[in-house]
Formats: sequence, C-alpha cells, structure tokens
Amino acid sequence: MRRYETLSVFPEFFEPYLSSSIMGRARSKGLFEFAAYNLRDWTHDRHNTVDDAPFGGGQGMLMKPEPIFEAVDDIQTRAEAPAHVVFFSPVGEPFTQRCAERLAGEERILFVCGRYEGMDERVYTLADEVISLGDFVLTGGELPALCVIDALVRLIPGALGDEMSARDESFSDGLLEYEQYTRPAEYRGMKVPEVLLSGDHKAVDEWRLASALERTRRFRPDLYEAYLNGGGHGARSAL
Amino acid sequence: MRRYETLSVFPEFFEPYLSSSIMGRARSKGLFEFAAYNLRDWTHDRHNTVDDAPFGGGQGMLMKPEPIFEAVDDIQTRAEAPAHVVFFSPVGEPFTQRCAERLAGEERILFVCGRYEGMDERVYTLADEVISLGDFVLTGGELPALCVIDALVRLIPGALGDEMSARDESFSDGLLEYEQYTRPAEYRGMKVPEVLLSGDHKAVDEWRLASALERTRRFRPDLYEAYLNGGGHGARSAL
Repeated sequence: MRRYETLSVFPEFFEPYLSSSIMGRARSKGLFEFAAYNLRDWTHDRHNTVDDAPFGGGQGMLMKPEPIFEAVDDIQTRAEAPAHVVFFSPVGEPFTQRCAERLAGEERILFVCGRYEGMDERVYTLADEVISLGDFVLTGGELPALCVIDALVRLIPGALGDEMSARDESFSDGLLEYEQYTRPAEYRGMKVPEVLLSGDHKAVDEWRLASALERTRRFRPDLYEAYLNGGGHGARSAL
Repeated sequence: MRRYETLSVFPEFFEPYLSSSIMGRARSKGLFEFAAYNLRDWTHDRHNTVDDAPFGGGQGMLMKPEPIFEAVDDIQTRAEAPAHVVFFSPVGEPFTQRCAERLAGEERILFVCGRYEGMDERVYTLADEVISLGDFVLTGGELPALCVIDALVRLIPGALGDEMSARDESFSDGLLEYEQYTRPAEYRGMKVPEVLLSGDHKAVDEWRLASALERTRRFRPDLYEAYLNGGGHGARSAL
C-alpha cells in the first residue's frame, strides 16, 4: 500500500479532498494511506512558533529550521518504509506527468509544505527531492502537495475504477487527448462530429488519433515535435 | 473588490482554504469575495446527472454540456460585472506568474472546474480563456482553480499585510529568490553566511543579488538567459 504524508501548519486542509470522490474511494479500497502532521507539534515554546525574522533584514517571516528537522526525523520512525522526502520550491524540478510516474514508484512519500515568505535554506538538506509545481507563487506548499498526491493516486492501479484508465489521458502517450463529446448530438446549434455517431470503431479510432495529433500540433508544438521525433510509439516516454 | 467564483460538483472543497490564513484574512478585510456554485443545481433530473458516456465509445464519463451552459448563463446575471470565464485543460495556456499578473486585473472571474474523464468539447465555447496548470493530470479542476485564486489573491494590494510584499518573490523580477536564513546562526553544524549577520546592508543586498543570480543560473538557465537578454531591469516582465 502507498503511504502519503504531509507536514504543514495547516494539517486540516487535506482531509476533505482526500476523503471525497476518486481520492476517497481509492483510500477506502485500501490503495493508499494518508497522514497529515502538524508542524507545531514539534515546537517547544508555548506559542508554538514555527517562523522567525530573516537574517539580513527584509519583509516577512521565514520558517525556522528546528521544528522541521525534528519533525522529519521523528516522522521517519513512524512507518517501516523510509519516507521519500519532497519539498516544494521554485528552484525544484518542474512537476510533470513523467515526474508523477516516477514518484508513483515510491512506497512512502512525505511532503513538507512551507508557508510564510519561505524556509530557512538549511531545511532543504532534508529533501530527497525538490519539486516546483510551476512558475507561479502560492501562499504555501499545501496546494502543490495535494496536486501531486492527486496525480499519484490516479496512477495506482484500480484507483480510477475498473471501467476507467489513466492511459487514455493527455500526456500519457506524449499527445494531448482527442476532442470528446457526449449527448445531445446537437446542442445550441453545435453538432457532434458525424463519425462519432457512426458506430464504425475503426473510423472512430482514426478520427481520435487525428484529433489528438491536430490539437497537439496546434496547442503544444513542443510535444508534437517530441512525438514525431520519437516515432510515435517511442514518444510514450516523452513526458 | 475582486470577485472569484467556482462552478464545480465539489463546491464545499474551496471554503476551508479560502477562510484560513492569508486567504481568510484578505477576505475578511474585504479585498475579495468568493462564491462556490454547485453544478448540480442546474440539472433537471432527480439524480442531478452531470455526466454521460462519450460518443464513439471509450472509458469513463464526460461532463454533459447542458448543465454547464445553463449554469454559466445564469451565474453571469448574478453580479454586475461580467465574469471572465476560465476553464482548465491541458490544451490551455500554461499558468505562470505573468498570467497571474494579467488575470489579477480582472474584476470578476468564474472558474469552471471539470471532473470525470473530461468535458464535452462544446463547453469550451463558453471560455474567455483556457488555462493549463502544468503537464500533469489531475482528477478535476478544483485544485487548479484554488491554485490560481491563491496566486491572484496574493497580488491584491494589502493581501499579504503591510509588512510583506509579493515583489521580493521568485519570478517577480525574472529571477529565483535568493537563499534565506533565520535563527539559529548555527544549526546541526550548518552556519548562516557571515555577511547576513554583519549588519552591512549594502553587502547584504549584494550577496542577495548574487545568490538570486547564481540560483537562477544553476536551476533555471532559461530564466537566466531571459534575464540577461532583457538587461536585468527589462527582464522584470520576462515572466
């Protein structure tokens, strides 16, 4: 069973999302365990202080090193498998589906979520890896951690249910997903492409590949190039 | 006042995050309003169905067009300013801090959050813009919407408090942020750089710029190139 853990000052944030819908069902089925640790449990003053002013001056507060070091040391002893420790930072590796597929191989992951203006640089010596969700600034690491956990849980066999699969999705074969339609066949003057109503499975498959290729070429020429250079099938590892 | 709205089948997810910490304080100060709409309120069957099987066959379910069209039409009438309508999709524009700065100028934004295997393609005709959070696959648009709202709220003047600023952060001037340290000056054998303890503000500023440049060169050569080509100051708009 996979085990995902978070260390943050906002531990109550994760549970609602990870108890609902696909995440909740995967957890009920025993496909993964989750634990949210409260960083303040590793403080020793009566205000449970986790932040302090930066050396050298400047705006805002930084997360202090001691509670984070003590928490990670302690959490490592709480399950048999050693936790792969992930921090979030703009200097980290950009998170992609390829990164998700690699992390999905880890039995146990601890996500350390910063808040405030940043963290004391020394805490990153605890990291097995540092991830960046993207080139944007968020208030804390909680949302990135939840995004990564979501992406990982989807990849656990059985998590999406018997009838679904993560394999048909965008990025999984190096292409964006084809256009999709459901009923009604005409809505507000907009019609579903005829071929999808034809019952001709071969023609549907051809249309879908053409749609995926066209969308990728148009919206993500970088992926399209990689797909062509990989010779189609070879590009399955392009992302 | 900014107004951010979400349309989803998981409306209860947003409130805890947007009522806490920096988001909650910004909202209490009246810097932004938030409303979470439940897509099922625009269904007409007793099961409140929002999904249906894809035309042409295949795994999983798609979001039906009718509830989304009806909801967006109706929500547009619920406030004076017209809502800028944002959808999430892998074909969208990658979300960056530059994109956040642009969106921060919109008075009212409605984020339409998909679930299941995707949405009927016709719903995207409702979009003023389509955003991709990154090259990874999530269960729904709720997490991307919350990430974007977080990034936008941080940019509202006053949201980070008087003593803080969004201007010192990574990406805001085209560079990653410099290394930061707080007490203790030595921890587990790791020392804070001497200059930060010196009280010499000019030396501190120089060290910080050098640190930002070095980290950007090392971890994000793409940003470093853009910064150099923009001549430093000009690169403030590089992201």
